[in-house]
Amino acid sequence: MALKVSAEEMMPFLDEVFPQVRGMFAIDRLDEDLLVMRLLQNERHLRPGGTVSGPAMFGLADVSAYVATMAQIGRQALAVTTNCSIDFMRKPASGADVLAETRVLKVGRTLSVCDCLLFSEGSDAPVARASLTYSIPPAPAG
Amino acid sequence: MALKVSAEEMMPFLDEVFPQVRGMFAIDRLDEDLLVMRLLQNERHLRPGGTVSGPAMFGLADVSAYVATMAQIGRQALAVTTNCSIDFMRKPASGADVLAETRVLKVGRTLSVCDCLLFSEGSDAPVARASLTYSIPPAPAG
Amino acid sequence: MALKVSAEEMMPFLDEVFPQVRGMFAIDRLDEDLLVMRLLQNERHLRPGGTVSGPAMFGLADVSAYVATMAQIGRQALAVTTNCSIDFMRKPASGADVLAETRVLKVGRTLSVCDCLLFSEGSDAPVARASLTYSIPPAPAG
Amino acid sequence: MALKVSAEEMMPFLDEVFPQVRGMFAIDRLDEDLLVMRLLQNERHLRPGGTVSGPAMFGLADVSAYVATMAQIGRQALAVTTNCSIDFMRKPASGADVLAETRVLKVGRTLSVCDCLLFSEGSDAPVARASLTYSIPPAPAG
Repeated sequence: MALKVSAEEMMPFLDEVFPQVRGMFAIDRLDEDLLVMRLLQNERHLRPGGTVSGPAMFGLADVSAYVATMAQIGRQALAVTTNCSIDFMRKPASGADVLAETRVLKVGRTLSVCDCLLFSEGSDAPVARASLTYSIPPAPAG
Repeated sequence: MALKVSAEEMMPFLDEVFPQVRGMFAIDRLDEDLLVMRLLQNERHLRPGGTVSGPAMFGLADVSAYVATMAQIGRQALAVTTNCSIDFMRKPASGADVLAETRVLKVGRTLSVCDCLLFSEGSDAPVARASLTYSIPPAPAG
Repeated sequence: MALKVSAEEMMPFLDEVFPQVRGMFAIDRLDEDLLVMRLLQNERHLRPGGTVSGPAMFGLADVSAYVATMAQIGRQALAVTTNCSIDFMRKPASGADVLAETRVLKVGRTLSVCDCLLFSEGSDAPVARASLTYSIPPAPAG
Repeated sequence: MALKVSAEEMMPFLDEVFPQVRGMFAIDRLDEDLLVMRLLQNERHLRPGGTVSGPAMFGLADVSAYVATMAQIGRQALAVTTNCSIDFMRKPASGADVLAETRVLKVGRTLSVCDCLLFSEGSDAPVARASLTYSIPPAPAG
């Protein structure tokens, strides 16, 4: 299925919809099978010792599932997260960006479900995994 | 079971362990049955329209489960979140603080499990619920 | 809010919709605030040692969330579970029924969210907790 | 990492540890990267219309995570599920076996985390996904 929003179109859309996270994330890859997003290093996300905090990893997974869903259904700013289950498995490497690989498992009429694996850049062992459900508002009539 | 850390002792401990969240949270109530924490209003947590963001609610649930666990087992800075499942159910009220009511369901030798309901202050309908598991490191020998 | 289906009306409805679980569950209490369901002892649910298996506890939580939702919205056989997060915290007592206390946290237009605590009868320490989301099909037009 | 238990050794071990599920599951593939298990057709697992029930899919995911963990750490009958989050995404096909593809994301000293995708045989669209955490008891001293 061809994507409805490209990586180039996505970042301006994100900046418009979520201005408060501007500059926090970048898209490394966006195609039909996989989205790779990057949490840019920023002191606000760090815990003592220089590792990325849990809420920052949650935020990366959350925005990734939003972007992956928008890429498939088109820009619908009002889609909202209804559920996230996240497992934190390893301490992120100090000084490395955290990357999220996201796959869309289902896009239905009212829900999308995404799966997300988070890695410290340069490592193969995932630091976290998350699954997220977005509720998609009904398309306006007409 | 008497608590091992009181509300008064907890905030300085939190500020020391998580300096980057200083000023974001307050404890409204901490006793043997219930912890109530408050996410203090802060532009960083807001989405357009003035409602609290998902990652900020996740952060409140996460720190609440940590505080509730520490109150029961004593200060062990190294406890880490291993799992969180969170359901977002309603849009938080604009301009109201978000409060989290947290109960400890289990404190075992290696894991604690907490349940958390989030409300906009002044409303009875929960905006989110979360369950969290913390892994508790083994006590140092001696 | 008055319930749309009473405890007396619910069991024949369940038997009709899920004939294969006939005789596995009973309703101890169903009112506007709380549903209590019981997993009846049955060798099929047991693990060696006489404790109730994880899948049987999942099944109890799942049917409880269905019943609690139906009680609020009326009989809609097609509602389906979309998500369950369950924490197993203690070994159920051998020889005791498992009871589930279920509360409906939200009933929206397309989703319901329930919270469920499971106990061995006669004990106050929960053996498991679960949260479940049901997707509610749109009402047929006309 | 070489597996500590092969597919051939696993089934007799499962039958011994969980005699009540004997005949319900088969192992299609077990190697270092992937476990594929099959829920054998059985009237007990079916809903009206011939589709596999939610609790049966939960049971398949649960036993798969157990088998995948045992294959890596060796036979430790006492490992117990502590958390499962499962998303049901599509109705399983009527008359087809359900297969689970399971990957171990982490095996630590006290916890293992597995990811599981469930399919109706012959279809590429997953019917469910699950993540599971097992708690691994400490090895006996000596």
